[in-house]
Amino acid sequence: MAALLSDADLAAGARLMARLDAFAAFTDEPGRLTRLFLSGAHRRAADAFIGWCGEAGLKARIDAAGNVVARYEGKREGAPALLLGSHIDTVRDAGRYDGNYGALAALAVVEGLRARGERVDHAVEIVAFGDEEGVRFRTTLTGSRALAGTYDEDFLDQKDSSGVVMRDALKAFGGDPDKAGAIRADNAVAFVEAHIEQGPVLEAEGLPLGIVSAINGATRLEVGVDGVAGHAGATPMKLRRDALTAAAEMALAIEARARGEADLVATVGRLEVWPGATNVIPGHVQFSIDLRAPDDLRRAAALGDLTARITAIALARGVRASLAKTHEANAFICDPRIAAGLTKAVESLGVQPRLLPSGAGHDTMIMGRLCPAGMLFVRCKGGISHNPLESIAVEDCALGLAALTRFVRDFRIA
Amino acid sequence: MAALLSDADLAAGARLMARLDAFAAFTDEPGRLTRLFLSGAHRRAADAFIGWCGEAGLKARIDAAGNVVARYEGKREGAPALLLGSHIDTVRDAGRYDGNYGALAALAVVEGLRARGERVDHAVEIVAFGDEEGVRFRTTLTGSRALAGTYDEDFLDQKDSSGVVMRDALKAFGGDPDKAGAIRADNAVAFVEAHIEQGPVLEAEGLPLGIVSAINGATRLEVGVDGVAGHAGATPMKLRRDALTAAAEMALAIEARARGEADLVATVGRLEVWPGATNVIPGHVQFSIDLRAPDDLRRAAALGDLTARITAIALARGVRASLAKTHEANAFICDPRIAAGLTKAVESLGVQPRLLPSGAGHDTMIMGRLCPAGMLFVRCKGGISHNPLESIAVEDCALGLAALTRFVRDFRIA
Repeated sequence: MAALLSDADLAAGARLMARLDAFAAFTDEPGRLTRLFLSGAHRRAADAFIGWCGEAGLKARIDAAGNVVARYEGKREGAPALLLGSHIDTVRDAGRYDGNYGALAALAVVEGLRARGERVDHAVEIVAFGDEEGVRFRTTLTGSRALAGTYDEDFLDQKDSSGVVMRDALKAFGGDPDKAGAIRADNAVAFVEAHIEQGPVLEAEGLPLGIVSAINGATRLEVGVDGVAGHAGATPMKLRRDALTAAAEMALAIEARARGEADLVATVGRLEVWPGATNVIPGHVQFSIDLRAPDDLRRAAALGDLTARITAIALARGVRASLAKTHEANAFICDPRIAAGLTKAVESLGVQPRLLPSGAGHDTMIMGRLCPAGMLFVRCKGGISHNPLESIAVEDCALGLAALTRFVRDFRIA
Repeated sequence: MAALLSDADLAAGARLMARLDAFAAFTDEPGRLTRLFLSGAHRRAADAFIGWCGEAGLKARIDAAGNVVARYEGKREGAPALLLGSHIDTVRDAGRYDGNYGALAALAVVEGLRARGERVDHAVEIVAFGDEEGVRFRTTLTGSRALAGTYDEDFLDQKDSSGVVMRDALKAFGGDPDKAGAIRADNAVAFVEAHIEQGPVLEAEGLPLGIVSAINGATRLEVGVDGVAGHAGATPMKLRRDALTAAAEMALAIEARARGEADLVATVGRLEVWPGATNVIPGHVQFSIDLRAPDDLRRAAALGDLTARITAIALARGVRASLAKTHEANAFICDPRIAAGLTKAVESLGVQPRLLPSGAGHDTMIMGRLCPAGMLFVRCKGGISHNPLESIAVEDCALGLAALTRFVRDFRIA
């Protein structure tokens, strides 16, 4: 299949790329892109976003929870709305596409409709969430939680590393902490988020776009392995209780279990060794497990298997293993009607549609509690994200925008 | 075999234990035992040692290289000497037996001979080396190197972490940097060092004493593994190049190779992961290998096998592995006549003699360049050393002293 992009589509994609480049200038740290929730850079970015909305004839504003929101009326004034968007906060030393692509693509969809004088059956509302990365406070996704009606007032008491309370930061930013818990978007009929894939699947398969089937549920574990430290020269192999080789065997068992099942991923990302000296047998190792699956039952089964394997390895090696669950989030199944609509839009561009799970969490999984929700993925280079090397091709940028536009145009309220 | 210890032997052991306890008071850090080469605590310890020698009728002194030396004449004044000793410097937060046991046992042997008015055919010289642990300067074993005639004048230019030059520290301590290179102990006919095992072999076998067959040769390697970092949720297992699971497979291959061959030991003691975040697939891992064997050819063969296995694992996993040798020391074979003499002495106490290699390095391997040299090991609790938990039983302390005494009494110049 060869992609069918008109010159107008490609030009719109190029304009979106240019805007993403310009938007990357809003940073809290010179020389790299860092735009934390409710920071000065976040506010300047929000102002720029509001300005661009104004140029497109939309009245945009910062809502009580720190999101930027704007509305494009449908054929009938005051109609229920299809919500489009993503987040505009970033990690430290970020790339320019994660989140920002979906927020600016939402604006670009509306700019395209307006330029053609086109109104659709429903209203289109743009949302630029402010708090997806969860870097600054010990909270995350508070913007989407507010719109979904699941805001927790306790969020506001969180402090950042400088001691700034979220309540004060939100007020200074232009939000309204007293009302953040009461802005549920009851007029929303659906939410769709475009986002870079943050993984290498589309690139590996030579496909520019993906339709998200589910956002993986995740379990995080902290594993401690207690062996016995000893002199690396003076302790024969058979008298060792080496915490590191035990952990190594566990890491390989974790990898093997995940390799044996499609769409299951398991990662040991952090591993620390004590005492960590060349000539001392490790006495203690601490490592993390990150386990994700698009299906909660399969994830639970894998977790059971991993726990059993780790326990068996510890027993066989005479070391002690302790496991603690540090995080658990259930999978979110994207709305099948939205996935079908996105599939149709992608196909209409001459692009082979590819359904895939999202390994990362997104605002979509929160918005899905409010209304039918789904996601469109755009291929990114090397699967790299959360890194200045994050990169997308201009043609893929244009294809994503065109697919989202076609989806919006064809969307009907069920 | 039940050990045959007389009341006098046991009492001598108890006195040696008490002296080891008292000696532990000489520390550079209140609350823990830290006695670095040429420090204030080292000098106070040397003074106490000289004082105890004086009480035993020996004239002791600090030599040019910072060793404490004392001589007990044999039947014939000016006869060649059997050297006995070990080191009295320690690591930081040390135990009280590593080194100190052998130095104070040497003194106790002479005290016993003198108390009984006993002279042997040769002279007995006591040496308390000052620089075995190599903690303060980037040198080690300079005391034994001086006596062995392999002193390097460059040692004197080394600086400690505060910028103090070894030459100045040695002069302040009471040594003589200008003469340290010229004190070769040409009158030595043999050197014997008693030392705690620093490993768990004797304890595991229920034996109080061991005779050292060889001091293991050692190779240290630094291995870097370059994979590709990626999102732990968004990167399917089959598209990963995980540096940590590659390193885990290497660590297990290293362990398996060493397990397959008696007296070979291999340790991954240090392992670091980048970026080291729970939700990021490790892109880089750096780890150490410490490989030791009592035989240089077997060590070389193992090194070749490990290199091949690491390379093969890297290739199969699509990661890059780089190996760099950071240290290499050949094995030292203890003199068979000394080992035989120590074996006989141990047997005469009703103790089953156990020949075993030493995994750690010792002054003995340096003194072996000067004259026949060997070592006697004393069982230590849990194989623990370089730690305040270092511990020996009073009966084992006495057995070691009695065995050393019997060895000295029976020793004849070949």
